[in-house]
Amino acid sequence: MGLDLSAIIVLAISGGLTAVRAQLDVVGVLVLATVTGLGGGVLRDVFIGASPPAAFLDGRYLLAAVVAGSATFLLHPALERAEGYINVFDAFGLGLFTAAGAVKAVDHGLAVLPAILVGVVAGVGGGIMRDTLIDRVPLILRKDELYAIPASAGATIAVVGLTVVDAVGPSVVAAASVTIVWRLLAIWRGWTAPEPVRVRTAT
Amino acid sequence: MGLDLSAIIVLAISGGLTAVRAQLDVVGVLVLATVTGLGGGVLRDVFIGASPPAAFLDGRYLLAAVVAGSATFLLHPALERAEGYINVFDAFGLGLFTAAGAVKAVDHGLAVLPAILVGVVAGVGGGIMRDTLIDRVPLILRKDELYAIPASAGATIAVVGLTVVDAVGPSVVAAASVTIVWRLLAIWRGWTAPEPVRVRTAT
Amino acid sequence: MGLDLSAIIVLAISGGLTAVRAQLDVVGVLVLATVTGLGGGVLRDVFIGASPPAAFLDGRYLLAAVVAGSATFLLHPALERAEGYINVFDAFGLGLFTAAGAVKAVDHGLAVLPAILVGVVAGVGGGIMRDTLIDRVPLILRKDELYAIPASAGATIAVVGLTVVDAVGPSVVAAASVTIVWRLLAIWRGWTAPEPVRVRTAT
Repeated sequence: MGLDLSAIIVLAISGGLTAVRAQLDVVGVLVLATVTGLGGGVLRDVFIGASPPAAFLDGRYLLAAVVAGSATFLLHPALERAEGYINVFDAFGLGLFTAAGAVKAVDHGLAVLPAILVGVVAGVGGGIMRDTLIDRVPLILRKDELYAIPASAGATIAVVGLTVVDAVGPSVVAAASVTIVWRLLAIWRGWTAPEPVRVRTAT
Repeated sequence: MGLDLSAIIVLAISGGLTAVRAQLDVVGVLVLATVTGLGGGVLRDVFIGASPPAAFLDGRYLLAAVVAGSATFLLHPALERAEGYINVFDAFGLGLFTAAGAVKAVDHGLAVLPAILVGVVAGVGGGIMRDTLIDRVPLILRKDELYAIPASAGATIAVVGLTVVDAVGPSVVAAASVTIVWRLLAIWRGWTAPEPVRVRTAT
Repeated sequence: MGLDLSAIIVLAISGGLTAVRAQLDVVGVLVLATVTGLGGGVLRDVFIGASPPAAFLDGRYLLAAVVAGSATFLLHPALERAEGYINVFDAFGLGLFTAAGAVKAVDHGLAVLPAILVGVVAGVGGGIMRDTLIDRVPLILRKDELYAIPASAGATIAVVGLTVVDAVGPSVVAAASVTIVWRLLAIWRGWTAPEPVRVRTAT
C-alpha cells in the first residue's frame, strides 16, 4: 500500500508537469495527473479480472493522485527546478508498479508470459494514456527513450522469481532494482533500443 | 431508462455531426455516433465492475445510438442549422449521464471520491473517445471549453446527496441541474478554467 | 483455437510491419504487433464480461503475437515483398475474428445488435488501437478503406445464423467468407463507402 501510493504520487506529478508544459489549464493538469497515476493500475486490474479496479475500490489512490496533481498545479515552478529528481522518482514509480503488477498477475493465476505483460502494462500504461490524450506518440514507442525493455526485464524477474523460487520479497526487490537502475542508466547514458535492419545495404 | 436513452441519442447526434464535419463517410458517422453515445457508460461500467456493460446487455441503447447516427448521416444539413439546440441537448446529456453515473457508482459500493470520478467519466468519456479517434486533443483538455468542472460539481452533489441525505430523486435533479446550467453559462459567456501561474512574473 | 492463433499471427505481422514503416525500434515493433494481434479480442472479452480476457488466461495467444512480432522485426524485408499476401491474410484475420467474436458474444447471452457490434469490434479493434498509438486516424475511419461494412455484414450473418438457424459451423463459414471476399474485392477494386450529402448543391 505504501509503495503503491508513493508510485502513484510520483507518476501523478510527472503527468501534471506534462500538462503544465503543454499549456493546459487546471482541468488538464488534474486529468493528466490522475490518468498517469492510476491508468496503469486500472489496465492491470481489467486484464487480470480484478473487478472493480483497486483505484475505484479504495478512495486513497484517487485522493493521492488528485492531491499530487493539485500540488503540481500550484507549485510547478519549484517542481520543474527539481526535474532531475523527478526523473529518479519516475524510474522508481516504473520499477515499483511493474514489479507489483507482475506479482498481482501471478496471484490471480495468470500464466508466465501474460503475467509479464501485465507487469509491463502496469508500469507503462499510465504514461501511454497520458501521451495519447495530448495527441503525441507515447514515449514508450519513441526511439530516444528506453522504457519497455527495463520494465520487461523487471517483470520477467518478478514472475520467474515467484514461479520458480516462490519468494515474494526478494523477487520484488530484485525486479524493481533491475528496472530502476536500467532505466536511470538509459536516461543518463542515452541508451536506446535496436532498430530494424534497413534494406538497400548490399547483401 | 428514458433519461439514459435521451442522453445517448443527444450524444450520438453530436458525435455524428463531428464526423460529418471531419468529412468522414457513413462508417465514420456511425462509429463516432456510437462511441460518443455509449463510450462514457461503458467506461463507467468497467470502472464499477458491472460486467458486461449495460450497453451490451440491453440492445435498446445501441439501437438508439445507431438510429441517431443514421439520422445524422441523412439529415445533417437540418441538424447543423439547429446547432444552437444541439449545444443545449449536449449539456443535458452531460448533466444526466454524470448524475446517473454517480448514482450507479454509489449503488455499487464505491467510496465517495471514486464515485465522483465515475460520474465525471460517464459524462465526458464518450467525448474523449470521439476526439481521440479523430486524432485531436479532447475538448475536456482544451482551455476554451469548460466541461469537467460543471461535471465534477454535479457528480459531487449527487454523491454527497446520496451519502448524507439518502434521497435519490432530489440528488439527481440538483446534480443534473447544476451541471447543465453551469455548462450552458460557460458556453454562452465564454467562461474558462484557471491556468497555472506562469513563471518570470516578478515575485 | 487454431483459427484464433492463425488470425492473431497474421494481425501481429501486419502490426509489426506498420511499426517498421513508422521507423520504430524493436520495442515499437513488438508493442504494435501485440496490440494489433490481441487488442480486438481483449475488447471483445471486456464487452461480453469474459473476465479475465482470453489473451491473459492462455499464454499461447501472447506467445503467438510476440513470436510473429519478433519474426517481423528480423525478416521484414522479405515480408514487405510479400505484402500482397499480407493483405489477403489480413482479410482472413478480419473475417475469422469477426465471425468468432460474434459467436462468442451470442454464447455469452448478448442481444442481437450488441452481439453484432462485439463481432465488429473483435475484428477491427486491434487495428484501431494500433493506429491510435502511432497517432494517426484509424483506417476504419478513413474514406479510402472499406473495413467496417464487410465486418458488419459478416457479424450480422453469424448472429442471425446462430439465432435463427442455430447452426454454428455453417454460420461461421458463411459469415467469414462474406467478410473476406467483400474486403478483398474492396481492396482490389477500390470500393469505398457512401459519404454524407454535401450542402450547397441546389435543391
